[in-house]
Amino acid sequence: MHGFEGTIAALSTPEGVGGIAVVRLSGPEACSIIRPCISRTLLEPNRALFSPFSHPESGELIDETIVTYFKAPHSYTGEDLIEISCHGGRIIPGIILNCLYITGARPALPGEFTRRAFINGKIDLTQAEAVADMIHAQTEAGLNSARTLLRGRLSQELTEIRQLLTESAALLEIGLDFTDQDIEIIKLKDVERRIQAGLKHISSLISSYKTGRILHEGARIPIIGRPNAGKSSLLNAILREERVITSDIPGTTRDYIEERINHSGYLIRLFDTAGLRETDDLLETAGLRKTHELMLSADLLLMVTVSKEETEQALQLLKQQDRPAIIALNKKDILSRKEINAGRSLSTPEIPVIPVSAKKEAHIRELMDLLLNTLKKTYSLNTESLTISHLRHQNNLLTAKKSLKTAHKALKDSLSSEFIIHDIREAICALDDITGRTTSMDILNHIFDQFCIGK
Amino acid sequence: MHGFEGTIAALSTPEGVGGIAVVRLSGPEACSIIRPCISRTLLEPNRALFSPFSHPESGELIDETIVTYFKAPHSYTGEDLIEISCHGGRIIPGIILNCLYITGARPALPGEFTRRAFINGKIDLTQAEAVADMIHAQTEAGLNSARTLLRGRLSQELTEIRQLLTESAALLEIGLDFTDQDIEIIKLKDVERRIQAGLKHISSLISSYKTGRILHEGARIPIIGRPNAGKSSLLNAILREERVITSDIPGTTRDYIEERINHSGYLIRLFDTAGLRETDDLLETAGLRKTHELMLSADLLLMVTVSKEETEQALQLLKQQDRPAIIALNKKDILSRKEINAGRSLSTPEIPVIPVSAKKEAHIRELMDLLLNTLKKTYSLNTESLTISHLRHQNNLLTAKKSLKTAHKALKDSLSSEFIIHDIREAICALDDITGRTTSMDILNHIFDQFCIGK
Repeated sequence: MHGFEGTIAALSTPEGVGGIAVVRLSGPEACSIIRPCISRTLLEPNRALFSPFSHPESGELIDETIVTYFKAPHSYTGEDLIEISCHGGRIIPGIILNCLYITGARPALPGEFTRRAFINGKIDLTQAEAVADMIHAQTEAGLNSARTLLRGRLSQELTEIRQLLTESAALLEIGLDFTDQDIEIIKLKDVERRIQAGLKHISSLISSYKTGRILHEGARIPIIGRPNAGKSSLLNAILREERVITSDIPGTTRDYIEERINHSGYLIRLFDTAGLRETDDLLETAGLRKTHELMLSADLLLMVTVSKEETEQALQLLKQQDRPAIIALNKKDILSRKEINAGRSLSTPEIPVIPVSAKKEAHIRELMDLLLNTLKKTYSLNTESLTISHLRHQNNLLTAKKSLKTAHKALKDSLSSEFIIHDIREAICALDDITGRTTSMDILNHIFDQFCIGK
Repeated sequence: MHGFEGTIAALSTPEGVGGIAVVRLSGPEACSIIRPCISRTLLEPNRALFSPFSHPESGELIDETIVTYFKAPHSYTGEDLIEISCHGGRIIPGIILNCLYITGARPALPGEFTRRAFINGKIDLTQAEAVADMIHAQTEAGLNSARTLLRGRLSQELTEIRQLLTESAALLEIGLDFTDQDIEIIKLKDVERRIQAGLKHISSLISSYKTGRILHEGARIPIIGRPNAGKSSLLNAILREERVITSDIPGTTRDYIEERINHSGYLIRLFDTAGLRETDDLLETAGLRKTHELMLSADLLLMVTVSKEETEQALQLLKQQDRPAIIALNKKDILSRKEINAGRSLSTPEIPVIPVSAKKEAHIRELMDLLLNTLKKTYSLNTESLTISHLRHQNNLLTAKKSLKTAHKALKDSLSSEFIIHDIREAICALDDITGRTTSMDILNHIFDQFCIGK
């Protein structure tokens, strides 16, 4: 683990002006590194100690601090860890860090505290990823889902699958030694049962990925419609109604913008193709490259129409898409009652039509509730159940599934056990990669590089 | 103290993404408020306790936290105070706060924790102000100066002055009871001696204000010169050389910009009258209203010239200003050696001339060192000595000084002791206002409103 030794220090609270800041120091030398800076020579574990913090060379007082020592292995990192709680702001935490560098600490790399927790066996890799997910969660739904991961639910599930697969491999290995005996046939059934059970587990995790991704990264919802249908007005009306998280995120090519809102704890990402060259015809508009791309990656389509004819056109278009959709019949304020009823009559359970007025900000809340309910129903958005939300996990599960299917086919075709064992082992490797049992240094680096410094 | 009761809670670390966040809970009910959320029923003072933090009603796990209890009066606020260290990010701290609100806490007002520390006699008002100064300090110099205040140095000094004044008043009061006795004369001398000592102390504090203000708020340095003298180029060369804190702060009327840099731990504020209608003549430029205003509020003037003639003109102008000045003879790269020497020969100890090249970024560091040394010399910028930096303190000191001078004159004029005592009491009141002994609710509100929430 070259390059990851030593005692590390970093600011663990966000930068900026705040009442207090916490500097963390972790590693075998933590106690001796802090000793020249504080008043006590001995730190008692888990005790919050008021102490002046002074420069180790000049003895100049830096700040009055509270120092808490967590003794290895009973700390976040599993090493000796010291937390220094000082006054916040831009200057003091930096000076305290510099003092610790003088006495022997080095700056922590991004995610290095959590990396150490992983290396020291305090958490596995899925839990380390969950820590980052929790910190970056934008909604309660994302947080709950991350917490399930942090509790080790995925690891438990993977351990169960792993158990089934190692048993299969073990049964086959025993068979290799006694090839001519008739217990063979019984064993093969046992092997097949276990492989199939593993496959079922894995497939169920794989199918939870879309749900997990929506919980974590939000539901992608492009707003589609003619230029004058009031797409931007509708978007603005929604933004005024909802808890906006981030606004006006330009698309990569700046031909659409993204707005993120927190609706009842769920992250909703609305895309408006503002600025895109548009035609006056709804079908042509939907055919434009960027709109088309947004529709392909959408979790739900929100179509804006302003007449019965346009709503009929929209329904035709949406029926061909294999994803949920809602039609907002806009300009309710200027449409006649007859027109509104005609539009509403087109509503189906699959593609509901809801009359709204972006201008008057009428029925926006109902539209959003309908939207969330549709998402919940389609994707079983249950934050308590275990879902996969990392592409890394999903890819490894797909690899494991593929290997297991090959193993199953080899078993059915009565191929030599060596082949079957090989495929089962490949599946186990793919699963171990997820929890970090066998994860390569490259992948570890990639995962922890995405952490913030100080975690 | 209506509106300031109860048990309060707030996020005490800056908002945003970070490894950990700290939520503070302070007040008489702190322990009973947190009890439904954590695993232990009893908290041991000063002990960092690992505990799951759960929703008080649903029992749902929110986060794994570290809870530290500081028992009254041994806490920052002087009340029961509990710090909850949780995962950082935007969501978790908010949910934890909501749980505490459910069980009986209320959101803390800005600065309310420090306000309680003040109310409970843990710190006086100057120390409370110092806490805010430390958090907002932009440089080491500002920090050191704030720390002197936090240590209570100003309070000590004011207590000494107060002692002198109360003794004077007491002596005069005794005199009121025994008006005809000859010990009177001796007492009057004692009174005068004390008033004069108090005046001396107060005047010395008043005169430290400029120094304190520069340490805290930075030295104001406008860059003055003709349009083509290279003011903006010089400013840009300085910015490339120095540690920029904030850049491109537009002036209130957007006719100048301000740049803040941290030079050797001191805050330097450079003003460029970019965009100001300028004339080709140096004297006319200096006469423009905005430039003139900037010059009047300047702590040092930085004049940019490009020839011997212009330098002579600049010297004439600067000699009439009652503040330090430096002339940067720019375009050293294209001036002849003769021209450079001619310019340099005009240099005096009061107004040094330093040849530089903004374009080639030559001698910029020397210019900045010269600038800082001039500031240090002129304003005795010593971060260890006690300085006044708050206008509030300065105003109260000026009031105290005025009252004491009146008292002194009354004493000299042999006016009735009642008048003299009245004036001395006014001076004492003004001093007590600084430390918070008698500060009005309005002023307290004003001071603590400027704090961030969570401090």
